[in-house]
Amino acid sequence: MIPTKSYAALSKHTQLEPYSFERRDLRADDVHVHIRYCGVCHSDLHQARDEWGGSMYPMVPGHEIVGEVVAVGSSVTRFAPGDWVGVGVMVDSCCNCESCNRDLEQYCDDGMTGTYNGLERDGKTLAQGGYSSDIVVKDRFVVSISRSLNMAAVAPLLCAGITTYSPLRFAGVTAGMKVGVVGLGGLGHMGVKFAASFGAEVTVISTSPSKEADAKRLGASRFLLSTDKEAVKNHARYFDVILDTVSADHNYTGYLDMLTVEGKLLIVGLPSKTPEISPFSLIAKRRIIIGSMIGGMKETQEMLDYCAEHQIVSDVEVISIQYINDAYQRMLRSDVKYRFVIDLATL
Amino acid sequence: MIPTKSYAALSKHTQLEPYSFERRDLRADDVHVHIRYCGVCHSDLHQARDEWGGSMYPMVPGHEIVGEVVAVGSSVTRFAPGDWVGVGVMVDSCCNCESCNRDLEQYCDDGMTGTYNGLERDGKTLAQGGYSSDIVVKDRFVVSISRSLNMAAVAPLLCAGITTYSPLRFAGVTAGMKVGVVGLGGLGHMGVKFAASFGAEVTVISTSPSKEADAKRLGASRFLLSTDKEAVKNHARYFDVILDTVSADHNYTGYLDMLTVEGKLLIVGLPSKTPEISPFSLIAKRRIIIGSMIGGMKETQEMLDYCAEHQIVSDVEVISIQYINDAYQRMLRSDVKYRFVIDLATL
Repeated sequence: MIPTKSYAALSKHTQLEPYSFERRDLRADDVHVHIRYCGVCHSDLHQARDEWGGSMYPMVPGHEIVGEVVAVGSSVTRFAPGDWVGVGVMVDSCCNCESCNRDLEQYCDDGMTGTYNGLERDGKTLAQGGYSSDIVVKDRFVVSISRSLNMAAVAPLLCAGITTYSPLRFAGVTAGMKVGVVGLGGLGHMGVKFAASFGAEVTVISTSPSKEADAKRLGASRFLLSTDKEAVKNHARYFDVILDTVSADHNYTGYLDMLTVEGKLLIVGLPSKTPEISPFSLIAKRRIIIGSMIGGMKETQEMLDYCAEHQIVSDVEVISIQYINDAYQRMLRSDVKYRFVIDLATL
Repeated sequence: MIPTKSYAALSKHTQLEPYSFERRDLRADDVHVHIRYCGVCHSDLHQARDEWGGSMYPMVPGHEIVGEVVAVGSSVTRFAPGDWVGVGVMVDSCCNCESCNRDLEQYCDDGMTGTYNGLERDGKTLAQGGYSSDIVVKDRFVVSISRSLNMAAVAPLLCAGITTYSPLRFAGVTAGMKVGVVGLGGLGHMGVKFAASFGAEVTVISTSPSKEADAKRLGASRFLLSTDKEAVKNHARYFDVILDTVSADHNYTGYLDMLTVEGKLLIVGLPSKTPEISPFSLIAKRRIIIGSMIGGMKETQEMLDYCAEHQIVSDVEVISIQYINDAYQRMLRSDVKYRFVIDLATL
């Protein structure tokens, strides 16, 4: 067994604190990764505090993991010690259903195995995430990372990156298309970078005028203040694609109306209050709504290779593990540009 | 001018009654049609009673029109006197925008011109529908009807038919796919016929157990009672496509959950209360919602040709024009299998 240091939530009412546990010995298809950085996703906070219900403790959060390979199992050929690798939101799936066979493990018929806050496929071992020194993961769920990139800034690509890359690709975003990105946070800022890199004309749609300058620095050529009714009206039927990254409560109708004929509204956020949509807005222009959740392992690798080729990474603020509870407080105030990343050397 | 007999609503509070008016003299691109049958769509009733607001009177409803060509304008080459033809939900559009150029006149940037309850493109003439003896329509908005079909039973194809054919085609329904049709009314019964004719395995999803026998007669091989919670649960992730034809108030989440990965929920009904959707249901399986409104003129002709080839028509109850107010009452009770069609010879 591999002794592992970490920070964990021991209950929903307590702050994260130091916690020691053991990772499994390597199976034939396992990769042992020494974690160097882990991004801090808003869902870490939701789950540590049991805001979605069903949380399992002790919980080591973290699913934006990058590090170096320490050792590999006997059947692993894709990785060798010293390689830079990543682990994202899932660490296993049935690997046998139609979705898995289509490299869409995230939509596995049996349900993917999350990186933390759930049981592994043995039905008893608690999966533990990346706020930790080491992790052991089946090789199918490990991706290669180019040494040409800033390793800390790669971490958020494993969740925020693939969550926005996958739907933009699925929607067929290409040069010249008009793409709106709703919300400029961890997800949104990656959506802007990807859509701009695909050659789209990118508009950030936000309630905060203060985000305009940053939106343009990140690659948007236009900014739409969603509280400006006249400006919104002028964008009726304007966009080919709108990527909605917002998890705060909101309805979809206003965004639908900004889509052109057969325009696509891509949903990646999870508002807790069920959003409403106007059927008339859907029907009037054959508009389309598509939900999307992270991406499969093959596409995650494709995205990382694309990022290396185009030198795309996340905008991050690197923190020590001891700062994590303060970081959560700041995240609640949206006071982060655009992702906290824990330097696990501080463990 | 062409003297025209009809039945019209003179106000939202009055029943339909005999009404005489004149159709325009033929322009170069016009077709003069002597109407023989007109289907009765639920939206006729909504608009005659101003239930959607903004109704314009006097109003001659009716947009499922079939008849014979009386005369054509000087530039019309596609039609000749005596031809069987149809006119549907629209009689004009800008004919110049991207949608019109893609043969999607129903999504015209300037808005299509409805067959009744609106102004023609001159901005002053009230368009009047098919509960009438004659109609004059621009040739682009007239379609050919095969003499191999029962003319009365063709009428509902012009709205109920194309409204279901177009989204099923757009969603790529082909042999072997699992298609659910929600609601077995005027639209739903055509959805069943088309999906079955495409080779799909069709399941009617309905709240009325009494509809099972008819569902199977129309071409469905399966029936799902949507009030049977256990049966619904057993259909989680079952369907490739669900065609939702219901305009009564309902939410979409339950149907989303019955869709497989990348399954498509096709919306053609117009509930007045805004439906809710669970973003989690969308995201968890990359599910897709698509709105659809009738079909373009090219596709409407394609559908009619397909119907002639496969001998598909609507199930109708032919009525006299004098029965129309009673028919409306029965329609409110869903007491029609599956479409009333007015025989205009009774005018």
